[in-house]
Order: sequence, then structure tokens, then C-alpha cells
Amino acid sequence: MADRIPIVGGTGALGYGLAVRLARAGREIVIGSRKPERAVEAAERIRKEVPDAKVEGLENGPAAEEGPIVFLTVPFRAQSETLTNLKQSLAEGQLLVDCTVPLAAAVSGKATRTIGVWQGSAAQQAQEMVPDGVTVVSALHTVSAPVLAGDDALDEDVLICGRRRADKKRVAEVIEQVEGLRAVDAGPLEQARIVESLTAMLIGINGRYKTHAGIRITNLPDQAPWS
Amino acid sequence: MADRIPIVGGTGALGYGLAVRLARAGREIVIGSRKPERAVEAAERIRKEVPDAKVEGLENGPAAEEGPIVFLTVPFRAQSETLTNLKQSLAEGQLLVDCTVPLAAAVSGKATRTIGVWQGSAAQQAQEMVPDGVTVVSALHTVSAPVLAGDDALDEDVLICGRRRADKKRVAEVIEQVEGLRAVDAGPLEQARIVESLTAMLIGINGRYKTHAGIRITNLPDQAPWS
Amino acid sequence: MADRIPIVGGTGALGYGLAVRLARAGREIVIGSRKPERAVEAAERIRKEVPDAKVEGLENGPAAEEGPIVFLTVPFRAQSETLTNLKQSLAEGQLLVDCTVPLAAAVSGKATRTIGVWQGSAAQQAQEMVPDGVTVVSALHTVSAPVLAGDDALDEDVLICGRRRADKKRVAEVIEQVEGLRAVDAGPLEQARIVESLTAMLIGINGRYKTHAGIRITNLPDQAPWS
Amino acid sequence: MADRIPIVGGTGALGYGLAVRLARAGREIVIGSRKPERAVEAAERIRKEVPDAKVEGLENGPAAEEGPIVFLTVPFRAQSETLTNLKQSLAEGQLLVDCTVPLAAAVSGKATRTIGVWQGSAAQQAQEMVPDGVTVVSALHTVSAPVLAGDDALDEDVLICGRRRADKKRVAEVIEQVEGLRAVDAGPLEQARIVESLTAMLIGINGRYKTHAGIRITNLPDQAPWS
Repeated sequence: MADRIPIVGGTGALGYGLAVRLARAGREIVIGSRKPERAVEAAERIRKEVPDAKVEGLENGPAAEEGPIVFLTVPFRAQSETLTNLKQSLAEGQLLVDCTVPLAAAVSGKATRTIGVWQGSAAQQAQEMVPDGVTVVSALHTVSAPVLAGDDALDEDVLICGRRRADKKRVAEVIEQVEGLRAVDAGPLEQARIVESLTAMLIGINGRYKTHAGIRITNLPDQAPWS
Repeated sequence: MADRIPIVGGTGALGYGLAVRLARAGREIVIGSRKPERAVEAAERIRKEVPDAKVEGLENGPAAEEGPIVFLTVPFRAQSETLTNLKQSLAEGQLLVDCTVPLAAAVSGKATRTIGVWQGSAAQQAQEMVPDGVTVVSALHTVSAPVLAGDDALDEDVLICGRRRADKKRVAEVIEQVEGLRAVDAGPLEQARIVESLTAMLIGINGRYKTHAGIRITNLPDQAPWS
Repeated sequence: MADRIPIVGGTGALGYGLAVRLARAGREIVIGSRKPERAVEAAERIRKEVPDAKVEGLENGPAAEEGPIVFLTVPFRAQSETLTNLKQSLAEGQLLVDCTVPLAAAVSGKATRTIGVWQGSAAQQAQEMVPDGVTVVSALHTVSAPVLAGDDALDEDVLICGRRRADKKRVAEVIEQVEGLRAVDAGPLEQARIVESLTAMLIGINGRYKTHAGIRITNLPDQAPWS
Repeated sequence: MADRIPIVGGTGALGYGLAVRLARAGREIVIGSRKPERAVEAAERIRKEVPDAKVEGLENGPAAEEGPIVFLTVPFRAQSETLTNLKQSLAEGQLLVDCTVPLAAAVSGKATRTIGVWQGSAAQQAQEMVPDGVTVVSALHTVSAPVLAGDDALDEDVLICGRRRADKKRVAEVIEQVEGLRAVDAGPLEQARIVESLTAMLIGINGRYKTHAGIRITNLPDQAPWS
């Protein structure tokens, strides 16, 4: 039986969209939220959208304990505090998939701009904060949250950064259960700074083209490096 | 009759590839180099590759005077000095298409990493250095130089940054004469820092996947904002 | 008669300390705050500390209209929103002295770390946001707020960044009315990124040495470049 | 008997000045250079300046093997290559005192500007490159090379960054043998990015004030944290 998939911050746009798509793919989801009642409410909305969805709503901490691969989909402004609060919940061997983006919006700047993170990227900041033995992998920055939450077919890539190929492979397997998403190995975790900045660029493109753009890497062979 | 297209640093891999493709599209090219004899030699190579190519080789300065849209395809380490040398050659009304990438390789670091440019991006550094009235547009960072110089069909995007849409449209029209390239409006010049960093990410992907990857923006409407 | 000195965010530690010292030097102060009652209350506290102080408390907007040199002493997290709110209050010819510091604390990170500001520095972000004709000068990042608010003698430097020497001179004249502070010309506004980061370094030093450190530039001649 | 002090890149301005001052303090110096004959020549110059100096000139590699605390005083552009060449010479237990500064001059930019180093700072780049068991400490960025090489009395601080206090203490003990220099604990190695940027600021101040400025931290107690 497949593991449950906790989504910390799963009431936000990206986390919610991811939950909907993974539920549709038959995966069991645990929505986490700072306020458990909001998580429960989001779980109900998902069940309306995906009638046979197996989804539960919990406070972030208990949610994070529910599966080996935990998605973190909070706004960057809340990343640091959320990870502090998760210190007792995350445990050795878990993967934390960081999806946060250091947009300048976090300090009331533009969403088409980023802020420079001292550790290099939001993902590296996460890696610094998680308990020993928890590994951060970075993903999902270029997938539009509204598109994910909707019904349209997807056809784009997800750039994954992380230290070990085996970890990226495990995350890729989850992500590729969402129909239309292909996982691409974008390198070690330090490369997350580049991938994170793509969100800002895409937000700008979305505004100019009135669309919800994504990224596709061209000219890739069928086999990922982790295959 | 179409304008001639100067390519400063056109003996390098990217500039040479661009020259080959534009020559194939029937455009008249002026290859610039620090050493005129190397420019002449590159022009000859292009004529072997594209028999009816109209291409001339000149020193960078005189080359830059030969057309209204000048491509700058030097390594980042040489960008500053090259622009200092072009101060007498570039003139009001010209567009300078900056293709340089601030890879850490410029200071003997890895090609999969960038260095932070004080002004925000290589393109903004260029804008600071060009004579008054010359406008910098940024482009071509994600197109593989070896692929461009070869015969394979292209099918990817070129992300263009610049202040005015009219300028980006003019550059887009040149770039889209290369078969298989689509120009995408990636926003104002300050967004060039994001696009420039993509080169480093793609170099990493090329290494892992043994390929020459490019970028495609998904979900775009047919009309660019400058149409 | 000397101009009044508005201090936007003057109820915070740095603004309050600056107000106390300038009031002691006989300058007339206008404390600004988002909530006018807090500004009034701070003005009262200053009058207790400095019996003959001429000080008034107003909402930030009206406060900013009260003098030609306006100090901005809000936390970085509030800088952007504050400047948006001041758009109708600031007017051509005014100098805005930006004292904000982009500490990582703005996004729940450490106070010994900074965040990278897209425009280069908090000061340049401010310059981008103020109405046309308002000039930003950067200052006061290395002076300890608690020391400023206390009674101890000062003996340190204030690093001033700005485009024009004449502007820096005007700001220097105000700052040097605080006994024990010497103004140093730290260069154009773009240098503010370096000076701003010193706050983070000094916060670290304060923790390790249990003190309130400041900066002194050694080996300077008596005459500043603006003399 | 005190250890010998290798100075890799000791023929450059900063390394040479440091060698002169430490030789005057009675320390035995090994000047390293890429070309051994230049190291020998520098050693001779030092002996002229400091008649009883114990100083030898060697190629960088052999020089680096001569003592437990090795100073690295090459330009940033050469740091990466130098460290690659030292891989066989540096050994577990040694301290490498990185004095390099990522000035934009390394890529033909201004000396009053820095470039952003991917790893955070030149010192962190060095730490990434040295063999396992070699520890990088960062120091000496704010001391003027020409002043160090001259006869004038010094009276300023040296900001030291490093992971362990014990390491910083050892480096401080060497540096404080230079009369007039006080070592200040500027925090962990990640703080080096701030200290390194001070060089650019001081170069600007030197130009405006026609001087050779340094830094002094005010209000420090007599005891350093490592005492």
C-alpha cells in the first residue's frame, strides 16, 4: 500500500492543487495547516472535487508525521516559523520537499522579484533548519497553482534539486503520478536558487501573456539520471 | 533590404552558431573579434558551411558600427573590457543584444554556478556601460551554442528581457528568423538575472542527461505582448 | 531658525533614540507613526527625557510633510508599505534618509544575517519607490539604537551613502549635531548594501562581546569630501 | 620556538606587507609564489627592509607545507586555481587564513564593488575547496596593503570569521603580533561575506578622502570571546 502524503501548508493554493491532483491519482493525502479546522475544511473541499479521495486534515505537526515524503507549500514568509514548529514532528529518514519561493512579495515587494536568501535558496534554508537526518529536496516551483487546482490537462516539467539521486527519484515518482508532469533532475540542492527564481519570471510572463505558464526542458532523453 | 547584423565576439561558440543560423536564413552578418584576422577566418568557415552566406569579418569596433542591432556574445570575463572598447563605436539608437552569462567559470569556478553581478545582471552591467542612447536587450542565454552551430532542427524558446516592447519586438524578429526559435517576452531588463542563471542550470542538466537542453515556456498564447 | 526634523517610524528604537539625541541638541522633532496616538505618546516620553524638547507626534504622512530632511526608521519589513503610504506626503526637493536594514529577521531569519534586496539595497528600494524629485540618502545603520536612546557619550562614525555630495553634506550636518557622531562619506547610494550589512555583523558582535558596538573608520583626514 | 608562517601569494601587496610586519615582530616567514624565483626575490626585499628577518621564498605548494597556519593572500581571480594547486600541500589540521576579496575588479569591474560568490563568500569558497580537515578562517580584509608594507604605526582592527573560537584565537595571536592590530571576533565563517565587502567600501573611502582607511569596532570590552 502506498504511503500517505502529508502536505504542510496544504490549504494554500499550491498545496491544495497538489493534493487534488495526487488524490485524483489515487494517493492518500494528509493536509496540514497551522489551524486544524482549516485543514479539515480543505480536506472536505477536496473530497467534493474528487469524490473517492482519501484525504485527512490535521495541524501541520501531526500531519508531517504521517508519511515519509512531506511536501512544504507555505509562503516563504512563513517557512522559517513553520520549520521551527515542525522540529518535533519531522524525524530522521524523512524527505521534506520544499516548494517555497523567496518572492519579494514576502517583504511587500513585487511577485516578479525575488529576495536573496542568506543560505543560497529557500531550500537550503530549509535544509539548515530541519532536524538531523531529514533531507530536503526542492520541487514544484514552476507549476501554476491555479492550473494544478483546476481540471486542465498538464504538460510540463518539474525541476527537482537535491543531494542524492535516490531521494530525487523517490520524489519524482510521487510527482509523476500527477498526469502530465515530468520530473527533471535539476542538480544538487544549491541549484534550487535558480529554480526558485523561475517562479518570479513566470509570474511576470503570466501577467504579460494573460496565461498560466510553465517550464519544459527541451531535448531530454527518455531516461532520467536516476533511472 | 534587411540590415546587416554585427556579432561582437562572433568567433566564440554562441556567436558563431548564431551567425551560421542567421546566414542560413539569408541575413547578412558581420563577425566581430578582438583580432580582425580571427574574424575573417570565422567568416570563411561560415561561408564553407553556408555557401551563399553574406558574411564579413572585422575587428569588434568597426563591426559594431555595421548595423542597428548588435549582438554581444563574449564570455562574461571579457564583457566589461569589450564594452569599454566599443564606447566609440556604439551610437545612439542602436540596440545591443547582450548574450553574456556571469558563470562562476569567469573566476575559475564551476560552469553550473553563477556569480552575482553588482548591477543585478550582466545585461544591466552592459546597460550601465554603453553610451547614452544605446539600449540593451538581453537574449539567447538558453540556446546551446553547439546545437546552434550544428545542423539539427531547433525547437525551443529564447527569453528576451528589455525595457521597451518595441525594442524586444525588433530583436524577436531577428531571432525568429532562425528556424525553430520562438521569442518570449521575459520582462524588463532587470529580469535578465533570472534568465542568465538558467544557463548554469542547463549546463548542469546537459552534464547529467548527456544532451544539449533548452527551455520551452508552456501554455503561451500565439500572440506575444509586442504583437 | 532650523528646520523641523520628521522621523517616520520614530516610535521604534532607532527613531526614538535619534529623536532624543537631536532634541537634546536643540532640534525640533516631529515623530511619525502609523498610529498617531503612539506618536503622541513617544513625543511625551521624549519631553520627559529632555525637558525643553520641542517635539510633536503625528501620523507618518503628515509628519513627513513637516521638514525638508525626513528620516525613515521603520523595520525593513514595513519599508515598502510605509513608502507606498508616503507617496502623497513626500514632495520634490525633500531628502529621505533611509535607515532601514534588510535583516533576515524580516522573514523570521536571524538578525545576524541579511536578505538580498533585488534593487541592491534597502536604500535603493526606497529610491525606486519615492516620488520623483525626492532623493534618498542612506545613514545610521551602525549606531546602536539602545545606546542612542540612553545617556552614554557617543564616539563613533555614521556612514552616509548618496548620489550627490551636497545632499550628504546636509544630512551630515544634522547627524553631527548629535554629540559624538562623525559623518563619513561612504560613497554613492549603491554602496548602501555594504553599510546595511554591517548592522547584521554588529548584532553578532554585540552578542559575542555583550556590548553595543559601533564603527569607526580609521586614518581619515579632518575634512570630509563635502567640506 | 614559534612556528613558521607561510604566506601563499606573498609577493602581492597584502601578503608582502603582512610578511614585513610579522618579520619585524620576529616571526619566521615563508613567502609563497606561483613562481619560486619571485618568492625568493620578495624574501630578499624583506631582508633589506627588516635586516634580521628570517624569511624564505618558495613555490606556493612547498611554502604551504611549512607551518600550521597558512595565509592566503592572492587576488580573488586566482583563489580557485591556487587552492586547486594546493590540494596536495595542505593537510589535515592546518588553518588556512583566507584574505581574498571578491572585488568586481576580478571581472574587470570596479574595485569599489564586489561580485557575489555562489557559496556566500570567498572564504566559504575556500572552505569548500580545501582538503578535508583543513579549516578556513577569514581575516585581514580591512587592513590597507600599502600601509602594512610601510613604516607607519597601525591602530585598527582585524575582523576574524571562523567556525571555532579556538581557531580564531590562534589566528588572532599571530595577527596581534603585528603592533597596532587588534583582532575582533566577527562571527562564523558565513559572516565573511560582510567583512569581505568592507574592502570595496574602504577602497571607495580611500579615493574620496585620499587616505588609507581601516576599521575600528567601538565599544568593545578588553576581553575577546576566545580569551
